[in-house]
Amino acid sequence: MSKTPVVRRMNADDAGFTAELDQLLSWESVSDAEVNQRVVDIIAQVRSLGDAAVLDFTRQFDGVEVDSFGQLELPQARLQQALENIEDDQRAALQTAAERIRRYHEHQRQDSWRYTDPDGTMLGQQVSAIDRAGIYVPGGKATYPSSVLMNAIPAKVAGVAEIIMVVPTPKGEINEMVLAAAAIAGVDRVFTIGGAQAVAALAYGTESVPAVDKIVGPGNIYVATAKQLVFGRVGIDMIAGPSEILVVCDGQTDPDWIAMDLFSQAEHDQDAQSILLSPDAEFLDKVQASIERLLPTLEREDIARVSMAERGALIQVRDLDHAVEVANRIAPEHLELSVADPEALLPRIRHAGAIFMGRYTAEALGDYCAGPNHVLPTSGTARFFSPLGVYDFQKRSSIIFCTPEGASELGKVASVLARGESLTAHAKSAEYRIIKD
Amino acid sequence: MSKTPVVRRMNADDAGFTAELDQLLSWESVSDAEVNQRVVDIIAQVRSLGDAAVLDFTRQFDGVEVDSFGQLELPQARLQQALENIEDDQRAALQTAAERIRRYHEHQRQDSWRYTDPDGTMLGQQVSAIDRAGIYVPGGKATYPSSVLMNAIPAKVAGVAEIIMVVPTPKGEINEMVLAAAAIAGVDRVFTIGGAQAVAALAYGTESVPAVDKIVGPGNIYVATAKQLVFGRVGIDMIAGPSEILVVCDGQTDPDWIAMDLFSQAEHDQDAQSILLSPDAEFLDKVQASIERLLPTLEREDIARVSMAERGALIQVRDLDHAVEVANRIAPEHLELSVADPEALLPRIRHAGAIFMGRYTAEALGDYCAGPNHVLPTSGTARFFSPLGVYDFQKRSSIIFCTPEGASELGKVASVLARGESLTAHAKSAEYRIIKD
Repeated sequence: MSKTPVVRRMNADDAGFTAELDQLLSWESVSDAEVNQRVVDIIAQVRSLGDAAVLDFTRQFDGVEVDSFGQLELPQARLQQALENIEDDQRAALQTAAERIRRYHEHQRQDSWRYTDPDGTMLGQQVSAIDRAGIYVPGGKATYPSSVLMNAIPAKVAGVAEIIMVVPTPKGEINEMVLAAAAIAGVDRVFTIGGAQAVAALAYGTESVPAVDKIVGPGNIYVATAKQLVFGRVGIDMIAGPSEILVVCDGQTDPDWIAMDLFSQAEHDQDAQSILLSPDAEFLDKVQASIERLLPTLEREDIARVSMAERGALIQVRDLDHAVEVANRIAPEHLELSVADPEALLPRIRHAGAIFMGRYTAEALGDYCAGPNHVLPTSGTARFFSPLGVYDFQKRSSIIFCTPEGASELGKVASVLARGESLTAHAKSAEYRIIKD
Repeated sequence: MSKTPVVRRMNADDAGFTAELDQLLSWESVSDAEVNQRVVDIIAQVRSLGDAAVLDFTRQFDGVEVDSFGQLELPQARLQQALENIEDDQRAALQTAAERIRRYHEHQRQDSWRYTDPDGTMLGQQVSAIDRAGIYVPGGKATYPSSVLMNAIPAKVAGVAEIIMVVPTPKGEINEMVLAAAAIAGVDRVFTIGGAQAVAALAYGTESVPAVDKIVGPGNIYVATAKQLVFGRVGIDMIAGPSEILVVCDGQTDPDWIAMDLFSQAEHDQDAQSILLSPDAEFLDKVQASIERLLPTLEREDIARVSMAERGALIQVRDLDHAVEVANRIAPEHLELSVADPEALLPRIRHAGAIFMGRYTAEALGDYCAGPNHVLPTSGTARFFSPLGVYDFQKRSSIIFCTPEGASELGKVASVLARGESLTAHAKSAEYRIIKD
């Protein structure tokens, strides 16, 4: 146990709490000027040199030794081989997870609709899938087969015709489970490239990598910056920062469970954030003791320790209503309501990526297999972003079909408004459709 | 009539057509390095100096003479006064349009849902409105009251608690109908600011302008660039380029109607794009003659003439199937299906912002009052963006509620997958919930 506290303690009733909380939460999801300029350069090179630039960057950044770009694409047979290579229980777990994820996401599919106005005008919305999606799967430190399922399955459910996956393989290291997950999810093509260069290749296309319509999935600061810069050329899902969890506990859950739930974020990344809110000061002491006792048992102790010390907090609140208020201010990625009656709190939760209800619903269950997506808005962006979903791979076209009489009536209104805007070609175009008495 | 052709003619069967089309369509929605740097600087100044910076930029760029920032906010009484000031037929037209827009957008509202798995796990999605929306209404050359309705009404329908509108007033010029539309739509606060400085103020907040969660609405290149740069800090709807129309005609519509429909885009902006596809070469000749004859009758002839000459085209296709193929390649903002049986083509239209069916449904009707939104994806981005809608002001939270038994079963799957990813705190957190036999 170290001498410095393993995690900070705060009280939400203290003067200055709001400022202290804002300080703790502050995170610039966008990158600094230097990172930005490097990413701008990488994108420019990929746009002008295509495969050759991507190949160069991949050798340079990922330490991958290949002779030609062709070696950076994995054939379908390789994915199938991975599916056979992994352990039986791993394959079964991936398949169970895939099936649950598919079932959940099918509820998100949106359908076209239309209705007819009293004047006979048909109005509606045609919903369709995007043609081609690019999914970014992080490699390196943390390679997540579950991320493949979470990115690709919603695209499949939406009806995307072609899914292109990119996953970096630093020093050529490849994760068999990632490839097996790609096989299960029905990914069409896989390139072992990553970073800003992979995002640029997907956005603009190269000789080998087809340009996609939308790029989704989490990545590091270079990936996040590149996604922001290509936004508009292609769609993107969101800009992801480090992972976070906020646990609201009434003090009746096993403190070891809560400590481990906090660690399940803290072990991701030194920048990850784990915060506990409870009205029970004695319980906060117990969780702190659990944290101190359990930290040394973690395989990723070093990462978790830094994360807990730098960005973690155990915060005392007045009561559960106060906890909800603070939670809405934080707008957390993951929110665990580890309380006796989570349904009582749910309607008042305004901002959260995913909500884990009750003592048994550990956030880790949601990460893998409960069904909902684990690609979630971070850093307070749950105020406006949603979990990755089928809706990210669908788009809408408005439909208007006027009868001659309906066009005549609407034409009169449009004409007045168009002339009010001094747009007389608009007005005349509408007026041509007005039926002369 | 000028000697140079008023509009280019193309044939989709020509060798090199695709390259020529791509050239015609090419438009960089993102700005060049110089514009980008100016916008970066404006945002930085607004972040550090707040009101003072916005006031300075507003004086400088809009030529507005005010003593204090307070004068840049319009009180509700001013909006009501505008509503009384405008002509009766204008007020009635705005109210009719508002009512139709509201009715259409109510169909877009998404509801929360939940279901229970066979193992007793409750899964769902809680849909909620964003707290505060910022709407950007262009001023200057083209001030559009209809844009106020199109931006604000979907936010209202979604249940957004507070709508902040910004509209620049170059040289202090203010459009009464814009203010009247704000009153009708229920806009909460109006600031007469614009450009990148308005976007920065909405994204980061100043002493006077509250920070919003999402910024929507079209604007010029500075606005578009600023929206892209603040994306991630706040949500944005899309990045808008110049307006476009694609008309598909079987050759049986009055050529004057088609010419005027093309002008209704061309008069917006020299960069606007108007394209006609028809299998009937003789009809294309007739439309060209109409264009030549009607251009001099337009109030905005100068703008429309440049737009038609620089970016317009009359394109001959083999047949209507071929027209659909070319239309999907263009992915137009506005698509008019000016044909006898538009329903026959509709299911094959994969990408379009809004689809206007039949000869009577002029695009101008949709701009104002048919009901669907006129804030639409431009420059081929209908491949992945949707019309502005209620869904832009709603967001989702995933919900998971496991029974003890359900958590135990899911815990086993999660444990296998977490250990496969070497995330042992995740694994232990899940394993705590496994019921020991």
